[in-house]
Amino acid sequence: MSILIKGVELFGEATDILIDGAFIKQVEKDIKAEADTVIDGRRKAVIPGLVNTHTHAAMTLFRGYGDDMALMPWLEEKIWPNEAKLTADDVYWGAKLACLEMIKSGTTAFYDMYHKLPATARAVEEMGIRALLSSACFDHFNTEEAEIGKAHVKKLYAESTNYSSRVKYAIGPHAIYTVSGPLLQWIDAFSKEHNIPIQIHLAETKGEVADSVNQFGLTPVRYLYRLGILSHRLSIAHGVYVDEEEIQMLADSGTQVVHNPASNMKLGSGVEFKFAEMFKAGITVGIGTDGCSSSNNLDMVEAMKLASLLGKGWRRNPEVLTADEIFHAATASGADILGIHAGHIEAGYLADLCLIDLNLPAFTPNHNFVSNLVYAANGSCVDTVICDGKILMQNKKIPGEEEIMAEAAQRAYLLIKN
Amino acid sequence: MSILIKGVELFGEATDILIDGAFIKQVEKDIKAEADTVIDGRRKAVIPGLVNTHTHAAMTLFRGYGDDMALMPWLEEKIWPNEAKLTADDVYWGAKLACLEMIKSGTTAFYDMYHKLPATARAVEEMGIRALLSSACFDHFNTEEAEIGKAHVKKLYAESTNYSSRVKYAIGPHAIYTVSGPLLQWIDAFSKEHNIPIQIHLAETKGEVADSVNQFGLTPVRYLYRLGILSHRLSIAHGVYVDEEEIQMLADSGTQVVHNPASNMKLGSGVEFKFAEMFKAGITVGIGTDGCSSSNNLDMVEAMKLASLLGKGWRRNPEVLTADEIFHAATASGADILGIHAGHIEAGYLADLCLIDLNLPAFTPNHNFVSNLVYAANGSCVDTVICDGKILMQNKKIPGEEEIMAEAAQRAYLLIKN
Repeated sequence: MSILIKGVELFGEATDILIDGAFIKQVEKDIKAEADTVIDGRRKAVIPGLVNTHTHAAMTLFRGYGDDMALMPWLEEKIWPNEAKLTADDVYWGAKLACLEMIKSGTTAFYDMYHKLPATARAVEEMGIRALLSSACFDHFNTEEAEIGKAHVKKLYAESTNYSSRVKYAIGPHAIYTVSGPLLQWIDAFSKEHNIPIQIHLAETKGEVADSVNQFGLTPVRYLYRLGILSHRLSIAHGVYVDEEEIQMLADSGTQVVHNPASNMKLGSGVEFKFAEMFKAGITVGIGTDGCSSSNNLDMVEAMKLASLLGKGWRRNPEVLTADEIFHAATASGADILGIHAGHIEAGYLADLCLIDLNLPAFTPNHNFVSNLVYAANGSCVDTVICDGKILMQNKKIPGEEEIMAEAAQRAYLLIKN
Repeated sequence: MSILIKGVELFGEATDILIDGAFIKQVEKDIKAEADTVIDGRRKAVIPGLVNTHTHAAMTLFRGYGDDMALMPWLEEKIWPNEAKLTADDVYWGAKLACLEMIKSGTTAFYDMYHKLPATARAVEEMGIRALLSSACFDHFNTEEAEIGKAHVKKLYAESTNYSSRVKYAIGPHAIYTVSGPLLQWIDAFSKEHNIPIQIHLAETKGEVADSVNQFGLTPVRYLYRLGILSHRLSIAHGVYVDEEEIQMLADSGTQVVHNPASNMKLGSGVEFKFAEMFKAGITVGIGTDGCSSSNNLDMVEAMKLASLLGKGWRRNPEVLTADEIFHAATASGADILGIHAGHIEAGYLADLCLIDLNLPAFTPNHNFVSNLVYAANGSCVDTVICDGKILMQNKKIPGEEEIMAEAAQRAYLLIKN
């Protein structure tokens, strides 16, 4: 199957794009090839699909349930009791809603961490988006639980070989306060043996850092360093509290970092994420939305704006975190973190891309497209989404979206009612 | 002219709304009245129109022009030379684009400060939105310029009596570093005599505070207090740097404050706006987007999210600035600052309201409508806008929007090219 996009703007220049199978074959003016599908790209701009590098997809079901609460009462009263009730079908519908929302706002790939991974995988397969799915893994410092966790990792990994090329498996040790050092080291060894990525929540709050120092005698990044598990296979979600030396440890080991500005602000985790220092040290930094229960949507266009504005704001420096840098983080760096050959509109890359509707006030005038995208637009500017060479959305509509929203809403309502 | 909205959700309950002329006449289930226009409100929620309490409408023309720059080079190289070239027609088209953008994102009234006020007034009259328009006023501590400024204020005030009831005049002394104390006092006296509101940029940056202490021996709010011009007719835009005693001065005098979270972050002005303390002191706090050249869009739905998240973030407290408080600030408090009887969906209030499209992921599930609006949605959720009892937008489309965007884009392009 081939797609030819005619006359679309690529960073201000009109071009044609030929997609053949899952890949971009040609990016040039006036391509003469025949194609199965031709898309009129005029008054649209093309961007690589956005990559959401940290979320909990199925938590769409808890959107807006228990906002404006302190962390522990929120988890204990609102989230954990309801998560315990989630069936695989609930997770499937929550993840379908998440995929729908991500596609509609221009995300073509995401890095997930959640329970009941096969249900999320099923949703991803059906929705046509790309995902790296990590199962949340815990042992609560209990050796029996650790063995169960290891068996679960092995099982999920074995099953993952049946997924399509769009769905990959990662290991998701939840955090250093829920996963023991020995289990973290086992995960690292398993990850190395099978070349599987790992994502962990790390250095998210001041409290976590204090607890880490109390429990392990080290700050979180130093603790992982001592365990010997910092590596290019590992990404840490949040990383709000890291000092200069820790940034160097992350850079030297190739560990990646995911910034979640909305979640860090809304949960009051902290605002002083050291994006600029990490860039400078050569760390690959991606952007994530986190789950909908904490930051309420999966809109990566909004997440880009928040990442830039927050970084400029707390430093009182309008020159840092430019629109171009943030756009790179949300596309090329995101693809690197997911380990996919995407994030660029160039021949040979995966055909994961979006067409942006320029007939909007946010792109009027259009002195600078990337500025407008990052600072003026939101996810509703996305008109067309192509992932793996297949059209997932055109004219801002996805087939079956009403049914997905209705079913997910009904399940969320019943879940909380019962 | 009358409008009947059938079966719309008002904070979770289905209701009908009858609009007669410019006002809401009845809010009740199953209204039996006849109406000139009937709107099907099912799967929609009604909210009071959002009120943008600080912007510079025509600066839409500079959207995305000179981002990521330090304040002074940006003003000196990008903004001032181009503002000097603006014709009244440019301002008119820039303001038309601004009105279009505001209506599309649910704003029904705004407080503006800009040059060539009559051009903006013309745009507002045509677009059907409501506005309080202040002319930017300066004397640069020069008595001749002060006399010109006074004459200009008198002229604009006299002309303003010809405007429709939707358009009112306010005085906009730019800032304490561009307007002398005597002129500020004259403005206050004129405002008192004619009951005209005043808006001034104040306490926006650390530099401004330091300069104020150097030049006047007092911090900005204390300086206005000494000049005797704090009053319920005055609103200050920004107010990032105010201490406890200054908050009390603002509260005691009835002075209002406008928070501009996007601008304060993006320009690096500062993030620690004391929203919670001002609420507690009883100050009326509104939310503004500031102009598009600094915060890039006029989306008040996004501004609500930013205001809440920023406040939670810098305090590291997820419990402050709840969705309900922020929504109140962007509606009822905004209406109070503009001096209009709006901001509530109740009989007797102005018929300035929006219908929100609930068939969106942001409202799925809909455990809490206000949470979803503030934290998950953006301006694209607005389906229908009614202002002064007239329908300005239905089905997310405004008649003539393509022409307005095309003309504004062309003028912006030529302005910067020449």
